[in-house]
Amino acid sequence: MAGTDRTQPLIAGGPDIILVRPQLGENIGASARAMLNCGLTNMVLVEPRDPWPNEKAVKTSSGATEVLDGARLFDGIGAAVGSLNRVYAATARPRDNIHRVVTPRRAAEEMRRAMAAGEQVGILFGPERAGLTNDDLLHADTLISVPLNPQYASLNLAQAVLIVGYEWFQAGASSEPETLRMHATRPANKEELGYFLDRLERELDAAGFFHVEDMRPTMVRNLRTVFQRAQLTEQEVRTLHGVVSALARLKG
Amino acid sequence: MAGTDRTQPLIAGGPDIILVRPQLGENIGASARAMLNCGLTNMVLVEPRDPWPNEKAVKTSSGATEVLDGARLFDGIGAAVGSLNRVYAATARPRDNIHRVVTPRRAAEEMRRAMAAGEQVGILFGPERAGLTNDDLLHADTLISVPLNPQYASLNLAQAVLIVGYEWFQAGASSEPETLRMHATRPANKEELGYFLDRLERELDAAGFFHVEDMRPTMVRNLRTVFQRAQLTEQEVRTLHGVVSALARLKG
Repeated sequence: MAGTDRTQPLIAGGPDIILVRPQLGENIGASARAMLNCGLTNMVLVEPRDPWPNEKAVKTSSGATEVLDGARLFDGIGAAVGSLNRVYAATARPRDNIHRVVTPRRAAEEMRRAMAAGEQVGILFGPERAGLTNDDLLHADTLISVPLNPQYASLNLAQAVLIVGYEWFQAGASSEPETLRMHATRPANKEELGYFLDRLERELDAAGFFHVEDMRPTMVRNLRTVFQRAQLTEQEVRTLHGVVSALARLKG
Repeated sequence: MAGTDRTQPLIAGGPDIILVRPQLGENIGASARAMLNCGLTNMVLVEPRDPWPNEKAVKTSSGATEVLDGARLFDGIGAAVGSLNRVYAATARPRDNIHRVVTPRRAAEEMRRAMAAGEQVGILFGPERAGLTNDDLLHADTLISVPLNPQYASLNLAQAVLIVGYEWFQAGASSEPETLRMHATRPANKEELGYFLDRLERELDAAGFFHVEDMRPTMVRNLRTVFQRAQLTEQEVRTLHGVVSALARLKG
């Protein structure tokens, strides 16, 4: 494995490891260590609870300071994933939304292929105690669920990062770039998708679609999940804008 | 003592996880947690430094006390492995002895096969700081080396146990690599999807969406592709009907 070819810059640092609202600096440091073990160097922090930079994180990182020093901070997941084409979320808990769910191994192969084809990829990891919320998961195309003892499946943050990163590293030598699809277009990024989804919601509001207010959050989540899952291209997002325009224009 | 009672199915509890001269109770507890995550319950301690049983181990085990309670103590590796047929040793460091070396994935497959054939199997893990000595390794048939970032490959004890255990668990998991989580619904069938897509096309026709006739086949294909790819549930198809109805109803 030492001879793995890591000439492609995007793949070299791996996908963004996005820690969402991490609580303890210690766990950020331990995650940095696990990342560097697996050749991952792109750490992203969304609203860490403890002050940043953080001394305890440095201590538990066991020298993986290059990961901590390069960490980027964001307010909100939306900002953190805005430039990404593909977002995974590691979660132990089954959720109400209907998401595509893959193992870390499958996710690793997919990410390698996507990044080799030029996509930018990130993985969300939730806060230590509560994990990612349903709303957090709306930013993800696909969930990663680690197959473990169903009677005792909870991993701490750094362990979850380690397992996902380990599979990323193992997939290193074997993946071929994905060649299918994408003609004169590219995967939509999350900003473009978010803009479309916000607009769809506004148009549906205007149309009285959400007439039962109690059902509104569920229906919004369901709709967003559908379009997240479709892994839209930039052109398709434009087409869908056209669809909404055409239908809404009927108002006259 | 060494022979122990093995009335339980051998594979259920997995191979013996043999911690050789572990230093900190905390690390024994964290290893117990990692073991139980992976369905491993046979812990063996060879000359732990701290007194045993150990309160700190209980704390860091996060409730994996069944593993700690069942742990067996031995003086010397020889006694610990006496009843085993096959011994692996996890080590990050290259050694002088000429050993067979496998990855955790390969080791997991081998162990599953061996245990299914009635063999008793164990895995040695070294002390936190120094790892297993050359003499320790003489008790092992095969070394397990985890492929990791060659510039930063050192794992702590519980992480090494987790990776090896994770692969053990994966080698036995018969679950599908990918699933779509469904709640009280089912995948839409092609008739339902086709009915929706036909209807969408009619509504778009009425709205003048396909104003450039040459582009029509391409646009229809693109739209259909989006919704095919989303692997819609029956409920989601109904939601999308509602979306189209709401938008088109604006016509008034």
